[in-house]
Amino acid sequence: MLPRPIELAGVPLAQGRLPAVCAPLVARDADALVEETVVVAGKSPDLIEWRVDFFEAIADTDQVLEAAWRIRQAAPGIPLLFTRRSHIEGGQPIPLQEPRVLELYHAVCESGLVALVDYEAANEAEHVNRVCALARRCGVKLVLSFHDFSATPGADELAERFARVAALGADVAKVAVMPQSLDDVLVLLQATLAASRSLEIPVVSMSMGRFGALSRMCGGAFGSALSFAVGANSSAPGQMTIEDVRAGSALLRNAMGG
Amino acid sequence: MLPRPIELAGVPLAQGRLPAVCAPLVARDADALVEETVVVAGKSPDLIEWRVDFFEAIADTDQVLEAAWRIRQAAPGIPLLFTRRSHIEGGQPIPLQEPRVLELYHAVCESGLVALVDYEAANEAEHVNRVCALARRCGVKLVLSFHDFSATPGADELAERFARVAALGADVAKVAVMPQSLDDVLVLLQATLAASRSLEIPVVSMSMGRFGALSRMCGGAFGSALSFAVGANSSAPGQMTIEDVRAGSALLRNAMGG
Repeated sequence: MLPRPIELAGVPLAQGRLPAVCAPLVARDADALVEETVVVAGKSPDLIEWRVDFFEAIADTDQVLEAAWRIRQAAPGIPLLFTRRSHIEGGQPIPLQEPRVLELYHAVCESGLVALVDYEAANEAEHVNRVCALARRCGVKLVLSFHDFSATPGADELAERFARVAALGADVAKVAVMPQSLDDVLVLLQATLAASRSLEIPVVSMSMGRFGALSRMCGGAFGSALSFAVGANSSAPGQMTIEDVRAGSALLRNAMGG
Repeated sequence: MLPRPIELAGVPLAQGRLPAVCAPLVARDADALVEETVVVAGKSPDLIEWRVDFFEAIADTDQVLEAAWRIRQAAPGIPLLFTRRSHIEGGQPIPLQEPRVLELYHAVCESGLVALVDYEAANEAEHVNRVCALARRCGVKLVLSFHDFSATPGADELAERFARVAALGADVAKVAVMPQSLDDVLVLLQATLAASRSLEIPVVSMSMGRFGALSRMCGGAFGSALSFAVGANSSAPGQMTIEDVRAGSALLRNAMGG
């Protein structure tokens, strides 16, 4: 297995080391987002994810674009991942129907402000296809994601989900699941290893919650290209700090001779 | 699962944190052993293992006992694990037949200098039984061990080996295997988790070599009570430094809320 990092404009994140580290932004308005970004950027994550479903003015596209612009100014040189996490997959409730979400993605992709967008693979096929085409046309990388906040599917189902996401046209396949025990964490790591061997695109995975810390710290060794870690605030259960993810990953990488 | 640390005289190693850290001694004569012990003791491992198969004067019981005494003096307060690792399971060739080894174990256990002894479970049943009885009589804890330096047995066979060691009367069950891939490391961790749930004694496990680093750093979360780590010198492939094992274990333990 060769490690397969996420590449932006041909340049691998984190000099190609796995995992790169992505810090989420979850503030509710633009001023708070800028403050949050300054704190997060001070930790030098490889990527910043703006969870726009937390943004109160999400229904006002101009305000979204202006906030994205201000985030970029506050974190110069750090690429931005734009994510509306669906309420169904653990995100905040938002006042937009899906066609309006797609219009928002359209405006954001065309703005040139974001390097990647995340969209849930479980959305309607037509919507997924439109986001794929949009991202491709705009030169924005597409993360297609799958989340289960209550359980960890079995090995076969995880493999099927990784494969389906790749077949839908993703540039990055992301699977985030909740373990009920450490056994489930091992299942997720095994599925990640298998997907990183069989797919042609980078894979990203995590076991969430307390049990899943192992996957956030050591998932890179199993092929996971990205670990979501706390710069200022957490966006999902079990996220560790950027410093701890980097320290743990480095210890393991050094011990493995990488 | 409750963590099950190794206890000596009712006191758990490393205040009950998993894994405790054990540093090996591999010097060839008594003076070099003392020097090695001083370096190792400076890292404050929870346990020191004397790999007596490296000791040139192993055939001279008086010299062995004197060296053990000098090791204890050079590492006050750190308990000693006495191990003749069989050539068949990765140890050094020694000029003693097994009955002479048993006499050596007898003298060492009666000396009061060692807290634990390690003996391979694959030795002749009569020999294993004698070491068991000897250790019990002398109040020395017995680690019964199984090593495979070429491969990782399947999950069922690993479970069987943990169970057999416990049934033989061990106080601690140790299984050390060589992974051919990261998949094998996950198999070993799963088997460790299962054994730590099903057995009444502490379990110790490791995947060796480059791939196995994860087990040395994170095995404690899966119930492994001891990680062998380098104080001065390594005794098996893939051992990390004491500092790195402790740092990685602490990061994971903190993230898991322990």
